[in-house]
Amino acid sequence: MTQGIPGVQDPHSPSTSPQVGILQRYLPFTDWSWHYSPGNLPGDVIAGVIVAIMLVPQSMAYALLAGLPPQTGLYASLLPLIVYALLGSSRVLAVGPVAMVSLLVAAGLEPLAEPGSPEYGQLAVGIALWVGLIQAGMGVLRLGFLVNFLSHSVISAFTSAAALIIAFSQVKHLLGVRIPNTESFLVLLRELWQSRGGLNGVTLGLGLLGIALLLYAQQKLPAQLRRWGIPQVWVLPLSKGAPLGVVILTTLLVWGLDLSQGSGVAVVGAIPAGLPSLTFPWLNLEQWGSLLPTALAISLVGFTESYAVGQSLASKKRQKVDPDQDLIGLGAANLAAALTGGYPVTGGISRSVVNFQAGANSGLASLITAGLIALTVLFLMPLFFFLPQTTLAAIILVAVLGLVDFRPLLHSWHYDRGDAGVWLVTFASVLSVGIEPGIGLGVITSIGLFLWRSSRPHIAIVGQVPGTEHYRNMLRHEVITDPQVLAIRVDESLFFANAAYLEEHLLKQVAERPEVQHLLLICSAVNFIDGSALESLLRLMEKLWQAGVQFHMAEVKGPVMDRLKAIHFVEKIGADHIFLSTHQAMQALKVQGWKASANFTGRE
Amino acid sequence: MTQGIPGVQDPHSPSTSPQVGILQRYLPFTDWSWHYSPGNLPGDVIAGVIVAIMLVPQSMAYALLAGLPPQTGLYASLLPLIVYALLGSSRVLAVGPVAMVSLLVAAGLEPLAEPGSPEYGQLAVGIALWVGLIQAGMGVLRLGFLVNFLSHSVISAFTSAAALIIAFSQVKHLLGVRIPNTESFLVLLRELWQSRGGLNGVTLGLGLLGIALLLYAQQKLPAQLRRWGIPQVWVLPLSKGAPLGVVILTTLLVWGLDLSQGSGVAVVGAIPAGLPSLTFPWLNLEQWGSLLPTALAISLVGFTESYAVGQSLASKKRQKVDPDQDLIGLGAANLAAALTGGYPVTGGISRSVVNFQAGANSGLASLITAGLIALTVLFLMPLFFFLPQTTLAAIILVAVLGLVDFRPLLHSWHYDRGDAGVWLVTFASVLSVGIEPGIGLGVITSIGLFLWRSSRPHIAIVGQVPGTEHYRNMLRHEVITDPQVLAIRVDESLFFANAAYLEEHLLKQVAERPEVQHLLLICSAVNFIDGSALESLLRLMEKLWQAGVQFHMAEVKGPVMDRLKAIHFVEKIGADHIFLSTHQAMQALKVQGWKASANFTGRE
Repeated sequence: MTQGIPGVQDPHSPSTSPQVGILQRYLPFTDWSWHYSPGNLPGDVIAGVIVAIMLVPQSMAYALLAGLPPQTGLYASLLPLIVYALLGSSRVLAVGPVAMVSLLVAAGLEPLAEPGSPEYGQLAVGIALWVGLIQAGMGVLRLGFLVNFLSHSVISAFTSAAALIIAFSQVKHLLGVRIPNTESFLVLLRELWQSRGGLNGVTLGLGLLGIALLLYAQQKLPAQLRRWGIPQVWVLPLSKGAPLGVVILTTLLVWGLDLSQGSGVAVVGAIPAGLPSLTFPWLNLEQWGSLLPTALAISLVGFTESYAVGQSLASKKRQKVDPDQDLIGLGAANLAAALTGGYPVTGGISRSVVNFQAGANSGLASLITAGLIALTVLFLMPLFFFLPQTTLAAIILVAVLGLVDFRPLLHSWHYDRGDAGVWLVTFASVLSVGIEPGIGLGVITSIGLFLWRSSRPHIAIVGQVPGTEHYRNMLRHEVITDPQVLAIRVDESLFFANAAYLEEHLLKQVAERPEVQHLLLICSAVNFIDGSALESLLRLMEKLWQAGVQFHMAEVKGPVMDRLKAIHFVEKIGADHIFLSTHQAMQALKVQGWKASANFTGRE
Repeated sequence: MTQGIPGVQDPHSPSTSPQVGILQRYLPFTDWSWHYSPGNLPGDVIAGVIVAIMLVPQSMAYALLAGLPPQTGLYASLLPLIVYALLGSSRVLAVGPVAMVSLLVAAGLEPLAEPGSPEYGQLAVGIALWVGLIQAGMGVLRLGFLVNFLSHSVISAFTSAAALIIAFSQVKHLLGVRIPNTESFLVLLRELWQSRGGLNGVTLGLGLLGIALLLYAQQKLPAQLRRWGIPQVWVLPLSKGAPLGVVILTTLLVWGLDLSQGSGVAVVGAIPAGLPSLTFPWLNLEQWGSLLPTALAISLVGFTESYAVGQSLASKKRQKVDPDQDLIGLGAANLAAALTGGYPVTGGISRSVVNFQAGANSGLASLITAGLIALTVLFLMPLFFFLPQTTLAAIILVAVLGLVDFRPLLHSWHYDRGDAGVWLVTFASVLSVGIEPGIGLGVITSIGLFLWRSSRPHIAIVGQVPGTEHYRNMLRHEVITDPQVLAIRVDESLFFANAAYLEEHLLKQVAERPEVQHLLLICSAVNFIDGSALESLLRLMEKLWQAGVQFHMAEVKGPVMDRLKAIHFVEKIGADHIFLSTHQAMQALKVQGWKASANFTGRE
């Protein structure tokens, strides 16, 4: 979204007043609802419907995974969606129960209460309240900037790896075999292999039919429809409505051919009905305390998953997600889940992708989803009795496989091997050790790479481009150098991690050139000099002085010079050793070696 | 040491051949022994003697703290000192048993064996072998660069805080009270307060006498001696020999006045005699495995303590410590400890400071210490029977209090508030949560500060300095700007943590200036552009293009341009949108707005 940058779409006539900007920022729905384009309606409606159809069985399955009764998942798919649509920053994020958070809830609650008991349900509601408070608090404190430390490579690799995990988690439904849930990719592969004998051919056939139809609809149908002369306005709904069509087709097949009883095809089955009532989790202080660690983990993992998918989808439309506002939106959604007897929610990868691919343009899609969930819970449950689970697996599989994308890796490989390394580390870590530690390792690797680069800066010896006042790297350009003056440009800020390297490198360069009488340090790329680097510079100056070499600086930036002046560094080095430009320094040092000139103190 | 930078002391006549450089690097003692100046002898002898006198009782006390028999500490103070003097990088580091490592040994071994048993002793020797292998391995693999991530502030604050802890650990000896050993500063203060009733006045008097004499010798004696006409060559030995004098004086007082039996003054007492024999720890595989975690912790903490104090003392003489060689030296010293029935050693803070203050100039001081320890163990033990422990406490106290130095904090406060914050965090953490986690928090804070700074770069709008080809910050200089061309210089590399900030900031600047038709990004301080920032730049270009603003770049560095060319970014932006210098760009863009010129592709 661009509302953080008012008027940038047309800077020549900024039409949005500051008030509207603030409204748009803190109540993002005012942006898409006030300027709602009728052309967006079909996409929003189709997306809302399809996500609702996915969400009904998924939310119940995830609730069971979390050790909660099925209706808890449905309750978490009503008010939270409406709240996020009003307050959240991403327009296409489909909020609701997700597999990973459900697993974390189960792991956190099983030591505290018996799964299925009323106390367990109260604790789950309590976690949702905690998560809501933590996420909203982080948003209000503007801690969302922390996600900037997720580099493009980390997000891209995490998304691909998580999509693979989710896709493989659906294979069992596709094959009709029963194996336990697991977070580990390798365990899952082993379980699938061991249960290959229990394969249900009819289930697999239905699933493959679904996949074939979905892939056809995704890749060939739009062109086919156009060739058939279908009006453009219908092409999108028809092709994006394919999941709904597959659901209807396979449900009718199972019902009509009695595949559920006759061939053992797993179906969604009977679902209890009724809207949730308002609740509040009444827990004692000790219980609140024991829920905190799990709630912290869910808050961070949930936001990371949500932000990664939201950011990834937004960037496909060259939109942006405001992390602070998104934290507030997710936090409010979790508070809504807590108040309506649900459990923690976040932006789910698979549903968000379906939402995006089905053409969702705004939060309206989520409002429609919530409305349909409400209607479904009240009236339509019996119609989905014969919906085969393998169809839902096919829909999820086709949706998330589009997220598995190795092009960013190839791109990085050509542009920056370090980034490619971060991609591979993140991808391999998420698949092997899990999603949370995988992202953690990716972030640590990317920060480590940045520190490593900053600690081994590019250092160039420069000379004058003939006939100009410009000085460039002597290894890359035909330049004129002065044997008595060594002009060195360091392409990095000077700080603790590169101070020792720089000191040694400069001394080595001087030692290799016995004729050098002046060392000129060009600071055009030095954005700050920290205390450790300052110590290093003073040591360097002393050693050079012992060796009979004068030390000078040029092109010191304003903010850097301000600090150096504050500690009287300029007096130590001598004000006439600091030059505004490299050219002035070289001119001054060239004349008969160098004599103290009435040069001004260089600023910036 | 400067042997890593051959010939830099006099670059005009490099006298050291490459062979000598290599010898000096890998066998550092060849440097100080071949060029040994007779003037260094008094300092080395006095320092060697004083450290030996400190080391005899200290090493036994620390061995007892580690749950080992007293002679183990003495054995760890013989061969390890000789080996480090030959292979270690620091000239003044006093290697041997230290309090912190002794505590870690006790904590690691107590679950595995009964303190005092032969098995316990074998395990302690096993840890020393592990530590030796780990440290030497890190040195050979050149992993010593990791210590560059200890910034000046972290080391300075850690040293001050650890010195305070050590000083306060001696207060109980000074007061003559008995309280258990503890790593926690706060626990120690509480214990001291609770035991105030057991204060021994005679012990305290002896201790205060020692402190007074030592402080007098440290601060007034040299000037006094000169006023008395004592030759300069005797001033240093006499003033630095003060600890030895205090030892003799107080020992005679205790012996002559029968203060040990009569007034309950704690003395060193009887010490067993004899040189160690060569040993090897015969442990089973499971035991080796269970020792590894403790050995890893000791390896890292020991090296960090040793490097911090070694670096701190070396920088006072503007020398340097080579971390890789120092790891090899410490590793070899620990292997020597393992082979002679000792336990893990490292460079100790208090003894190293005494060594330095007593005038140690080279590893010869340590060789003398080791020789004296050997002689002492063989012949002189009975003479120290009446040495009061309070005197040793006074020596340690006066020595380490010199390390408590708040000037770096004040200095940082004026130069760089961020560095001052790192100092305070490290200092407070070491005092409150302990030395290891304190250093860890300091490192994390300093890396975090660097990342935070890099993520909020200085961004300047520049204009032409009249009559020159130079462009400077319009807020700091009287410059000429072109209302249609916004020339912005970003003073930081572009990477994941600042990509989003930069994108928003540039769009905001453009949005605030409706008359702008060209945005010129000056990359003189951009040392690399990572994959995330590249994505951000592409998004920025698209948004600017939608707003009718042209995007240009100037002063792109060679290494950055090479990468941009590899992924055909130059074709995307247009080769004629990239300029060698800001001046060329401004000239081209000034003429009738701008038209595609036959400009060359800017390199660097």
